[in-house]
Amino acid sequence: MDPVPEPTSPPAGPSSAAPTGRPVVVPLDGLRVVEGSAFVAAPLGGMTLAQLGADVIRFDNIGGGIDYHRWPVLPDGTSLFWAGMNRGKRSIAVDVTRPAGRELVCELIVAPGPEQGVFLSNFPASGWLSDEALRARRPDLIYVNIIGNPDASTAVDYTVNPSSGFAYATGPVGGGLPTNHVLPAWDIATGLTASVGLLAAERHRTRTGAGQLVTLSLADVAFAMVANLGYLAQAQLLHQPRPPLGNDMYGAFGRDFPTSDGRRVMVVAISAKQWRSLVTVTGIGEHLSAIERMLDVDLSQEGGRFAARDVLAAIIAPWVAARTLEEVRAAFDDGGVCWGAYQTFLQLVNEDWRCSEQNPMFRDVEQPGLGHVRVPGSPLFFDELGRRPPGPAPRLGQHTDEVLADVLGLSDHEIGRLHDEGLVADATDTGATTGAGAPP
Amino acid sequence: MDPVPEPTSPPAGPSSAAPTGRPVVVPLDGLRVVEGSAFVAAPLGGMTLAQLGADVIRFDNIGGGIDYHRWPVLPDGTSLFWAGMNRGKRSIAVDVTRPAGRELVCELIVAPGPEQGVFLSNFPASGWLSDEALRARRPDLIYVNIIGNPDASTAVDYTVNPSSGFAYATGPVGGGLPTNHVLPAWDIATGLTASVGLLAAERHRTRTGAGQLVTLSLADVAFAMVANLGYLAQAQLLHQPRPPLGNDMYGAFGRDFPTSDGRRVMVVAISAKQWRSLVTVTGIGEHLSAIERMLDVDLSQEGGRFAARDVLAAIIAPWVAARTLEEVRAAFDDGGVCWGAYQTFLQLVNEDWRCSEQNPMFRDVEQPGLGHVRVPGSPLFFDELGRRPPGPAPRLGQHTDEVLADVLGLSDHEIGRLHDEGLVADATDTGATTGAGAPP
Repeated sequence: MDPVPEPTSPPAGPSSAAPTGRPVVVPLDGLRVVEGSAFVAAPLGGMTLAQLGADVIRFDNIGGGIDYHRWPVLPDGTSLFWAGMNRGKRSIAVDVTRPAGRELVCELIVAPGPEQGVFLSNFPASGWLSDEALRARRPDLIYVNIIGNPDASTAVDYTVNPSSGFAYATGPVGGGLPTNHVLPAWDIATGLTASVGLLAAERHRTRTGAGQLVTLSLADVAFAMVANLGYLAQAQLLHQPRPPLGNDMYGAFGRDFPTSDGRRVMVVAISAKQWRSLVTVTGIGEHLSAIERMLDVDLSQEGGRFAARDVLAAIIAPWVAARTLEEVRAAFDDGGVCWGAYQTFLQLVNEDWRCSEQNPMFRDVEQPGLGHVRVPGSPLFFDELGRRPPGPAPRLGQHTDEVLADVLGLSDHEIGRLHDEGLVADATDTGATTGAGAPP
Repeated sequence: MDPVPEPTSPPAGPSSAAPTGRPVVVPLDGLRVVEGSAFVAAPLGGMTLAQLGADVIRFDNIGGGIDYHRWPVLPDGTSLFWAGMNRGKRSIAVDVTRPAGRELVCELIVAPGPEQGVFLSNFPASGWLSDEALRARRPDLIYVNIIGNPDASTAVDYTVNPSSGFAYATGPVGGGLPTNHVLPAWDIATGLTASVGLLAAERHRTRTGAGQLVTLSLADVAFAMVANLGYLAQAQLLHQPRPPLGNDMYGAFGRDFPTSDGRRVMVVAISAKQWRSLVTVTGIGEHLSAIERMLDVDLSQEGGRFAARDVLAAIIAPWVAARTLEEVRAAFDDGGVCWGAYQTFLQLVNEDWRCSEQNPMFRDVEQPGLGHVRVPGSPLFFDELGRRPPGPAPRLGQHTDEVLADVLGLSDHEIGRLHDEGLVADATDTGATTGAGAPP
């Protein structure tokens, strides 16, 4: 039984901004994080904090790091991926192949002050970026280091996922071959977990003065999650394989159906209330006793509905197939059915209000090198603080001079000398004003 | 910059021994979170904090909440899922269908003290759990509420994922029909984001005294991530569809290959170094110039390797097909190739050291109702604090009396009266000592 009352009417959604006239205060105001990163996990961890108001300074080599041209890209080579993963950060471009450039980056990482000295990275924690070298300069440094395997050997989302077991549980019934999921889900979980670890370590440092190295392995995140969901115990205790079920939900009723106009919907009934809604709207109630006798199942139980899913789907399918997506939407929404429409990325951005400016999380902004593009802020809405409007990603090196001045206290003269020596670059130098330019 | 206040609690004392013999101090020691939850996102958010040392008290109705029998289950109905998602928490069982039971839960949520008054929930924030009602009793409450759609209408991972665009980009080349991924990736990202939001709000409260309602929508997390990865901009700016590529990696070289002994491996080359390693080990170097001329591509670029992937795969496949998995492993590991073996959940738990006690994150523990089972601790390793060994999930109601005594300060007599009135239950009352029992 679900003990929680259903709301009598939908609660008001989060408002789009702080009450008029109030400044937007951001929850991580004051915290400064230096990020040395590439690809998904570490950049996402940094962006998550930047969207909550932390000053996240990403450093890259002049010309960009290894992910600066990651696909998807525009025809001129500008990476839509890079723009997506670095919004709200400051960018500094430094020649990290030379000792003097490395020294500048180290000075940023160990800069003094109670809310500085926080470093997030997926680079190897060795050589000039070793924990020992950095901690010698700031003993209370918080260093969050993302590694591949727990022994620090290389692993990426695309090599961890096949080992997780999920690929053999994904795809059509009886398919046999494993199916990778396309979402880099383990990278995402790792990046978010890194943010959690960083905030936990910073909380501890505030209370005790102690910093530390926090290590996080992509493979550990993945395999811990297999255990968290119960699949590891299922394999260990029951020795049960977990074959692919197509688009069916495991252990309850959930299936996809085609509509009369060539669209497709996913229908789910987990709770007793969702099941009653689905039965009522599709009018299958009169057949349930017969199905229970036929298959010796109890359809009041999730497991019974899972066991009977093919028969249930067979009598629901004609109802969906006789209706257009809009007719299905009207009937399902009216009747409280739990469902979703399948959409391509194009349909998502063109047709779904949740991915439009009707949703206060999304705003259309001008992104240098890309043009007008729809971007999200943090999905976290803090009601007393308001919603900070999302901004664009920086151009590579856009904040080089500003960061050298306000974090390291360098004079214009000193900054000019660093430019002359080719140790740093700004957005003009890197050619990043109008796009990523040609690959280096 | 905000001034850093004096610590609000003394540094934590030792709570258990680290493997090294050093005391384990946990980074979130002192923080208490009340969790009212079901399924994946909110329970995962709470468990993430519990694994870092927060005192997370999950309340459930007597007999268990809506997820207490969620699959996978043992033959007796005990949920492996529930055990997986609630490790390290304390469990209190309360009759929340009656006003006096609700009052007890509210007293837990708004209990006084600088590190209490933190509530994480995916229940509707209305009625007795409305923000207004709770905040009237503790104005600085931190209330993290997970909702489905941004307008608070119902959505679950299985209905959001079809709308995200990923299902149409997953599965075999030319497949046409959408393929759901099986991992509840959006739930996972939402639960971890909730942890981030909770810690950010608690940091803000420590500095300013202000609490707040933090709202987080599952659909927002999903669609923000589509944008973060660049796919939304690709659709919006280039109007490009994103067809399924089988198990190929997008925008670089990555493909799966069968071995001579019926296993399968994923091979990835993103960086120039990874590409050189793959070329060297598989001995395909002599053919690359011919391929570049044949297809008019530059194989030194990721995009060129992606464009030539079918030809590259055709000349790599025989090398893999002539070798067993162990032969491939030896050659690839020796040569620095980035790769992973496909595994089922059974193979993961039986064959992979990363999912064994050789990995300090995993320990075999005795889980009441399940027996000896392998469980992970936090994937975050804090080097100065040691690694806290993972523990089992509580039995439903295991900590009822203890929580009533040490959080609410109730006497044995008062606790006895609550039992007599059937308002609370402990693990013996709920029959949870040896398993979940029959569905209610």
